[in-house]
Amino acid sequence: MSSEPALGFKSALVTGAAGFIGSSLVDRLLSAGVRVLGYDNMSTGMEQFLDNARADSKFTFVRGDLLDAAQLRESMANIEFVFHMAANADVRFGLENPRKDLEQNTIATFNVLEAMRANGTHKIAFPSTGPVYGEATIFPTPEDAPFPIQTSLYGASKLACEGLISAYCEGYGMQAWIFRFVSILGERYTHGHVFDFVRKLMKDPSTLEILGNGRQRKSYLYIQDCLDAIIQAITRADGKVNIFNLGAEDYCEVNDSVKWITMHLGLSPKLQYTGGDRGWIGDNPFIFLDTARIRALGWKQKTSIREGVLRTVDWLQNNKWVFDRRT
Amino acid sequence: MSSEPALGFKSALVTGAAGFIGSSLVDRLLSAGVRVLGYDNMSTGMEQFLDNARADSKFTFVRGDLLDAAQLRESMANIEFVFHMAANADVRFGLENPRKDLEQNTIATFNVLEAMRANGTHKIAFPSTGPVYGEATIFPTPEDAPFPIQTSLYGASKLACEGLISAYCEGYGMQAWIFRFVSILGERYTHGHVFDFVRKLMKDPSTLEILGNGRQRKSYLYIQDCLDAIIQAITRADGKVNIFNLGAEDYCEVNDSVKWITMHLGLSPKLQYTGGDRGWIGDNPFIFLDTARIRALGWKQKTSIREGVLRTVDWLQNNKWVFDRRT
Repeated sequence: MSSEPALGFKSALVTGAAGFIGSSLVDRLLSAGVRVLGYDNMSTGMEQFLDNARADSKFTFVRGDLLDAAQLRESMANIEFVFHMAANADVRFGLENPRKDLEQNTIATFNVLEAMRANGTHKIAFPSTGPVYGEATIFPTPEDAPFPIQTSLYGASKLACEGLISAYCEGYGMQAWIFRFVSILGERYTHGHVFDFVRKLMKDPSTLEILGNGRQRKSYLYIQDCLDAIIQAITRADGKVNIFNLGAEDYCEVNDSVKWITMHLGLSPKLQYTGGDRGWIGDNPFIFLDTARIRALGWKQKTSIREGVLRTVDWLQNNKWVFDRRT
Repeated sequence: MSSEPALGFKSALVTGAAGFIGSSLVDRLLSAGVRVLGYDNMSTGMEQFLDNARADSKFTFVRGDLLDAAQLRESMANIEFVFHMAANADVRFGLENPRKDLEQNTIATFNVLEAMRANGTHKIAFPSTGPVYGEATIFPTPEDAPFPIQTSLYGASKLACEGLISAYCEGYGMQAWIFRFVSILGERYTHGHVFDFVRKLMKDPSTLEILGNGRQRKSYLYIQDCLDAIIQAITRADGKVNIFNLGAEDYCEVNDSVKWITMHLGLSPKLQYTGGDRGWIGDNPFIFLDTARIRALGWKQKTSIREGVLRTVDWLQNNKWVFDRRT
């Protein structure tokens, strides 16, 4: 291995390191020769997701909370690049506890930025989300779509984080890569439609309850395609604030994924729809992002939505323990 | 006075009630027959600005901090409409203490929304700001301009508030009127260009230091025109989230206002420019908003920028005590 790692930096801190996307990213960074400090409060992280990383001497883990500003600041010492993947990702239940999005997303991100500033760390990658576009009027939705009106506390908190990060770049000379994700799935996926469907079918293969009318259109991206895009962006885009949509080239209906999943599992459940054109208040009926900007950097989606869904189902079947950990 | 007030509500809570815009709004609401509860922590508010209100039996004042969620919740009882005017408006010094914008704008607004939710209060008016458009690419800038990138902590915090308010409207059935202001001036104006210039000239009429090159273009709106627009909007627009730019039909250069002020004061100071195309890091070189949306409701700017500047200078000359209170 050369002394100059391929990614252009030697050390990284990954928040949410024991989560779905965080732990997958940790593995990627380690195999690229980067020294990684994983930071996670293990509130939803999975110890098992770090098995691979822990076998690598370049990996260190800190069990810490992002609301503990002192511990975070200390952990940031000698870090070149921050991947701030930790978040309250429980989009659906935002209305039951609005403080969660404020604290775990907005305030936590503020603490990350302050820890970076205190340590002279200048580079940050941040996963934002398609719901920041609110009820989009243009499909596929480009990064410079008309100024949106927020419809979910989750989207609003991610937009607040984007704003903080961008202002820190302008004010303190930092550099950021912000990714607006569609839903990501694949190995280690632990929440969302596919997870819920597989869990329900394991409990009762005869019926499947579907939130809404099943006609909600969704665009999913496979985790390794997502990580390819992040790596592509941080090595090829060099603006002050680099914003990229990350999504699939196509979309499916919830009904499509139901069909794929049930066929793959060899089941024919009776489908029960709760009705309405969205799954819950604030659910976006359609998120479909224009990815021309990231594709212009050479990135290409390799895994179709269907294939991504099936790999996820396979992984869930082989890792049933995750259902016990998530209630 | 009829039993049904002209504005459609009988009680209002005004945060930042002792501030420039807040206290001017309090006076307007009282003269429209509304029972007003003023809420202010008096960190920058002026006791004198409430003299008029205190003479009205419909006015009550609570000295309270928006970070004191319990007191705020209690004060919100039986309130129909909230005018959340309190903010850290010290745009320029955001970089010296970034926590201030987070706490006094984002978290304070969250507390206001939670207090409303706890009390079943559904309507909120909120002053956002032109800087949420970042470095705008379209002039005059419309409300649905391309999705902006934030350049100041102040703009980022106001955008975070807009997002929270909009998500609460969607999730909890609230209704909001959000106003993106240019700089407002007039009687009770206590910070910004004109204030700084008059203060400097009172101290030393022979020279005037001007941040930047003086070519920064600015659009100012006179306080009574601003209040006209707010009243027009809340009585005529009835959407879920109503967003309006509020600004003047034209703009001036900082050099123009310098000329008007010095001529009005009969002074010929030597002008010293600090140089550069913006006053400070994160300063927007040009904010000029498209006000077609509010004009379509029948609103019209009555006072020119020049007239607004001169009225401000007159007021400052007649109220020199404000310079002792603001250091």
